[in-house]
Amino acid sequence: MSVDAVGKTRRGRGARKAVRQKRDIKMLPALKRGIPLMEPMSAEQIEKIDNASLGILEDVGVVFRDPIALEDWKKAGADVRGETVHLDRGLVRDLIKTIPASFTYNARNPANNLPFGNDHSIFVPMTGAPYLRDLEDKRRNPTLDDLANFHKLSHMLPAIHSSAHHIVEPYDHPISQRHLRITYSSMKHSDKTFMGMTTSPKNAEDVMEMCAILFGKEFMLNNPVVTGNCNGNSPLVWDETMLGAMRAFAKYKQPVLCSPFVLGGANTPAGVAPTVAQLNAEALSALAYTQVIQKGTPAIYGHYLSTVSMKSGAPMAGTPEISLMNMMIGQMARHYNIPWRTSNTLGGAKTFDAQAGYESASTMMAVLMSGANYIWHSAGWNEAGMHCSMAKFVVDAEQCAMGYRMAQGIKWDDFDEALQAVRDVGPGGHYLGHPHTLENFQKAFFMPEMFDNNSIEQWQADGSVEINERALQRVRDLLNEYEDPKLDVAVDEALLDYIARREREIPAADALNQDL
Amino acid sequence: MSVDAVGKTRRGRGARKAVRQKRDIKMLPALKRGIPLMEPMSAEQIEKIDNASLGILEDVGVVFRDPIALEDWKKAGADVRGETVHLDRGLVRDLIKTIPASFTYNARNPANNLPFGNDHSIFVPMTGAPYLRDLEDKRRNPTLDDLANFHKLSHMLPAIHSSAHHIVEPYDHPISQRHLRITYSSMKHSDKTFMGMTTSPKNAEDVMEMCAILFGKEFMLNNPVVTGNCNGNSPLVWDETMLGAMRAFAKYKQPVLCSPFVLGGANTPAGVAPTVAQLNAEALSALAYTQVIQKGTPAIYGHYLSTVSMKSGAPMAGTPEISLMNMMIGQMARHYNIPWRTSNTLGGAKTFDAQAGYESASTMMAVLMSGANYIWHSAGWNEAGMHCSMAKFVVDAEQCAMGYRMAQGIKWDDFDEALQAVRDVGPGGHYLGHPHTLENFQKAFFMPEMFDNNSIEQWQADGSVEINERALQRVRDLLNEYEDPKLDVAVDEALLDYIARREREIPAADALNQDL
Repeated sequence: MSVDAVGKTRRGRGARKAVRQKRDIKMLPALKRGIPLMEPMSAEQIEKIDNASLGILEDVGVVFRDPIALEDWKKAGADVRGETVHLDRGLVRDLIKTIPASFTYNARNPANNLPFGNDHSIFVPMTGAPYLRDLEDKRRNPTLDDLANFHKLSHMLPAIHSSAHHIVEPYDHPISQRHLRITYSSMKHSDKTFMGMTTSPKNAEDVMEMCAILFGKEFMLNNPVVTGNCNGNSPLVWDETMLGAMRAFAKYKQPVLCSPFVLGGANTPAGVAPTVAQLNAEALSALAYTQVIQKGTPAIYGHYLSTVSMKSGAPMAGTPEISLMNMMIGQMARHYNIPWRTSNTLGGAKTFDAQAGYESASTMMAVLMSGANYIWHSAGWNEAGMHCSMAKFVVDAEQCAMGYRMAQGIKWDDFDEALQAVRDVGPGGHYLGHPHTLENFQKAFFMPEMFDNNSIEQWQADGSVEINERALQRVRDLLNEYEDPKLDVAVDEALLDYIARREREIPAADALNQDL
Repeated sequence: MSVDAVGKTRRGRGARKAVRQKRDIKMLPALKRGIPLMEPMSAEQIEKIDNASLGILEDVGVVFRDPIALEDWKKAGADVRGETVHLDRGLVRDLIKTIPASFTYNARNPANNLPFGNDHSIFVPMTGAPYLRDLEDKRRNPTLDDLANFHKLSHMLPAIHSSAHHIVEPYDHPISQRHLRITYSSMKHSDKTFMGMTTSPKNAEDVMEMCAILFGKEFMLNNPVVTGNCNGNSPLVWDETMLGAMRAFAKYKQPVLCSPFVLGGANTPAGVAPTVAQLNAEALSALAYTQVIQKGTPAIYGHYLSTVSMKSGAPMAGTPEISLMNMMIGQMARHYNIPWRTSNTLGGAKTFDAQAGYESASTMMAVLMSGANYIWHSAGWNEAGMHCSMAKFVVDAEQCAMGYRMAQGIKWDDFDEALQAVRDVGPGGHYLGHPHTLENFQKAFFMPEMFDNNSIEQWQADGSVEINERALQRVRDLLNEYEDPKLDVAVDEALLDYIARREREIPAADALNQDL
């Protein structure tokens, strides 16, 4: 095939440099879905899950291990017996009605604000890794500098919509004060949306204070600016830490992800449908509680899904049941008209090998088909979340860009013009030089930069580099090119003042790594 | 988490041996779809493609570079000008009406017969690789022994429904006679369905003769026993080799895959919708021709899809547009009520690295959602089809088993029983010891054997083995355990006699590797 028309001028070192100079780091808007949803349940089956979940809430109840929540529930009219809260289905339905179906998720740069909910989706990087695989592919504990690097990458990768929070755990800072530095790093190194720490109620309150400095308290009380995640302890338990953090967020009307934590078969029944029924009950109980705390506060139907290996007890990802459960949960969330969160790119591979690729891509396709709104853990996840891979981070982000393109659907605007090209070219011709091709090629077909599609001879001439190494080189390039999205000087100083004050108030933990 | 209840007895070397002894190689029946289809086009958009394609067939026409086909078309009432056949939409619609919507695809072991078409899908391995990556992960030209090994693996992998044909090209046998040995190897080493060579009309006739020996000519004339692929030369050309092979198959009423060969942007317009319009025109022209040859002969709507990199001219796989086009082609094939073929696990990675994993899994998810009936290239494909990887072959096959499970959909049969487990276990409990769990665990959640989900400590203790090496070990184990699915002695002799006679008649090519 001749590539004269399209290929020649872009080859070689000079061309690569040219590409680098004009790299487009502009964030893609929140994805607006243009393909149908994959909905494996009938309306009757949705009712079946709904009914089973509400039956669990009524008969079995949910444990809220938190005196304030128990008091709140009593006042709200629930049947509280000890720590177990039995929720009448009418009460649950009434409460969740006031959860907004959509809202704007605000960034410090308004150009990066995100419409959230309904047919919109956003990609958020992985968080919480106690290790990273670094630029030398070495697995080690991360530092604040490493975290900053991930925030910088998040800022520069177009399909990533958030800098999240503790993508990796910064081990060089005392754990009791870490949340302050993590939050600052998210705010400072990126002007996209971010997440807030929920590791304790007090930490969550610090996040709220820092957000009030960044956005203004008044603005914040009326506009979502930060999301927090609260995990449940499946089966059917919510604990004091998470509930306290939830209250901190809800008091500022900031969106909380209510996320049952499923190890399918270990803390749920052995089956897809009953697991979703339990998870749905758990999610509903927390979603309802957000409205007990403050009516109208945004909340997100969450979950963390894995299935458990009967051979080893290990959590598994990329399995068919996780795909099915994502599709089902999407249906349930839409049934309640509540936006929902899922996890992307999960997997258990220890290195960035083919296992990691299969696991990540299977999950991404399933969650895109399922119509998830908040697609968390979209970049970097490996080893069941134990490490964040720098290489995988940029490849996953490109996969998000590809998934984004797919989920946008089919473009029809130049259809007639393109059909004219078929007539112009005719049988046996080629399209490379046709004006329609030259005009439309780049927008017509995605060209992944992290995939090598050259001949093996060319690949060998380029040094026989596998994707892990190619991606690490991309990370180095990006970090070299990074430009600070300037934070207002007064705001920056106020944030640093706040951190300094709080670090004086909060005793540093004895050991740096006490929690992990 | 305690794994006592489910994990302990299966660990260690003894456990692995136990697993090996009882490995289940029984073929899964043809997948019967239990999830909805992903259909991104409205009825109106389907009409738009249909209308555009029929317009192309009428106005631009299709070149049939084959005197017999041109004569056939004249007799059938087409407007033939030189080599260009202009097809009236009424004629096309009339002709394709007689293509069976479904049939039984017969294997020599009737237990492995496959219902084909409608909501059934089958997984067929990759074919046509001029290289393999062998048991030592060395890239080299394959031999007949290598081909036999792939046929043996196909026989043993439960989700693989066919031994196909030249999975790899056997370079140690003269090209002019190779099709005989390839066909024999497919028939001999597996008792599943297989494919027939279409590398020339005469070769296709040899395949028909050999099938007549294996199945009996009478049976064969009334029952599909072998599938052949005919590629188009896009845009809008069918050549003599393919058309002659098509006639050889159609005369025996054996199903032919009519496969336009798309290098999106190079031999089609730069766009998803117009590419599908052209591809649809090409497929329809060949599908219609199968019915000119013999009314009622089974035919399969085929395609090979790649998009072309503007940077290098290289074909790309796993891209969003290929996923979208698969979904659209599925809709078109169903519009015409004709079963359809797609390609799975395509990719351009040079090794079995993460790129290969991403590409394969993205494509597999898309084609499963699209409802393809004949899912070709489902195992082993790498390097744009230039090599078949032994390691990837078994991992892909496990992915097919996982995709199979997902596409079967949700099981509801034990839903009430499982809900009772939620009541039994209650908040804060665990399910590992519950009778419902013990009874349902293995069927409830797929446990991939090629994925390592252990802790890093366990993985290191096991030798820090990445998936490529683990898979190669699995290949060795499978080949060690292989048992010959006995071929009737008289049939075997008759086949060998036929081959011997034909090898005397066909001159061996001067050089072994003249074609590649």
